[in-house]
Amino acid sequence: MLIGCGPGATDLLTVRAVQRIGQADLVLYDRLVDSEVLQYASSNADVRCVGKAPGDGGIQQAGINAVIHEALQDGLTVARLKSGDPMVFGRAQEELAVAVATDAIVEIVPGVTAALAAVADPHIGVTERAEIHSFSVVTAKTADVSHSPHWARLLRPGTSLAFYMGVAEAWSIQSKLLASGLPGSLPADWVENAGRKEVRTVHTRLDRIALSARQDGVRNPAILFVRFPLSMAQTVSVRPTANLA
Amino acid sequence: MLIGCGPGATDLLTVRAVQRIGQADLVLYDRLVDSEVLQYASSNADVRCVGKAPGDGGIQQAGINAVIHEALQDGLTVARLKSGDPMVFGRAQEELAVAVATDAIVEIVPGVTAALAAVADPHIGVTERAEIHSFSVVTAKTADVSHSPHWARLLRPGTSLAFYMGVAEAWSIQSKLLASGLPGSLPADWVENAGRKEVRTVHTRLDRIALSARQDGVRNPAILFVRFPLSMAQTVSVRPTANLA
Repeated sequence: MLIGCGPGATDLLTVRAVQRIGQADLVLYDRLVDSEVLQYASSNADVRCVGKAPGDGGIQQAGINAVIHEALQDGLTVARLKSGDPMVFGRAQEELAVAVATDAIVEIVPGVTAALAAVADPHIGVTERAEIHSFSVVTAKTADVSHSPHWARLLRPGTSLAFYMGVAEAWSIQSKLLASGLPGSLPADWVENAGRKEVRTVHTRLDRIALSARQDGVRNPAILFVRFPLSMAQTVSVRPTANLA
Repeated sequence: MLIGCGPGATDLLTVRAVQRIGQADLVLYDRLVDSEVLQYASSNADVRCVGKAPGDGGIQQAGINAVIHEALQDGLTVARLKSGDPMVFGRAQEELAVAVATDAIVEIVPGVTAALAAVADPHIGVTERAEIHSFSVVTAKTADVSHSPHWARLLRPGTSLAFYMGVAEAWSIQSKLLASGLPGSLPADWVENAGRKEVRTVHTRLDRIALSARQDGVRNPAILFVRFPLSMAQTVSVRPTANLA
């Protein structure tokens, strides 16, 4: 089972996630999963941190795969906890492939993804969202930068764009979007710890994304929103984006 | 309180949503909210359907606003239930404005949005998702078509696009995407009743979206996914999209 645990606050787990965690023999979690979530594990369950934070010496992906493989072979029920929604940049593909290879019954429990927990904060310009017809979710970190999505193409009038884990890439995001001709005055917001009690919102604009992250000490887990309200399309001139890489 | 109730299955409610529903004096729900959710309401609560389905004679938006306004003025706790996530095409702006105007404390409880419940279905090409770096969510119905997002621009190699409530617009979606030069062989999936027991998936491709909806009798609530795996960008030639409207 691959279980989405929501963006951090324990009470943003779904009822189904709580039930499934309680049914597991082996519970694997990583650093972004709130430790309070583990209270739902059965008292007989083996609960292990396989957290991968930079330099924390957590076990490597191959090791995690091996643990999952062995447990499933032994007929155990495995719950692999992921923060947010498991399919949104949860890097779950390898572990899913392991489970499928053992003929285990695989269930994916969806979760509340951090971007939605972030926009649930009434301080992020509720009224402006009336002007937003679509939103896109991208990860600022991509293994191969040549494959990075064409962010500027995703940010058209009437759309909004949410970058996951974008703090380290703040300058890159800002530069690429500005270079494509998007107006520097587009509203942007950093939401740190979305859905948690410690949530913090920093309002800024496209041309101050990197500066605001530094000045206000924004830290991951953080979501960066950049929005292009329809009304701003009428007051600014947008250069064509056809020549983007 | 504006409460996201997930895509239909009662156990995809969050723990927080269950708690907040139980605390409300007045519970307002509409047709897409599963009736089982109402079991969480307090036995003293006033529970009312304000469902807006075409032609069902449900009360109009102005009526809903008036009910909310009056209840909040009387100091009652109001829970307005929305299917999925309240901020994803929940059309919540007017009701939020009413609540803010009465100086009520407004809380938005995020929910599992239908697109994420849909991709949690292991039958939607799990391996292909390794090739997807971003996804976008759009509503197929927009009040003003001249403001409709540039769908084709959102669908680049490495991205996927989820259309909410797209059945009636199937032909329009297919035609617009094909006209922009996207390959007809792009994988597409209809997911009917995402997250519910009655979930049904229909695999198709971009140039058969409308045909498959008709042949297989796909009905709303349904999500349509169109995906552009990176590997397909190498095997097909994509015409530039610069001349799109």
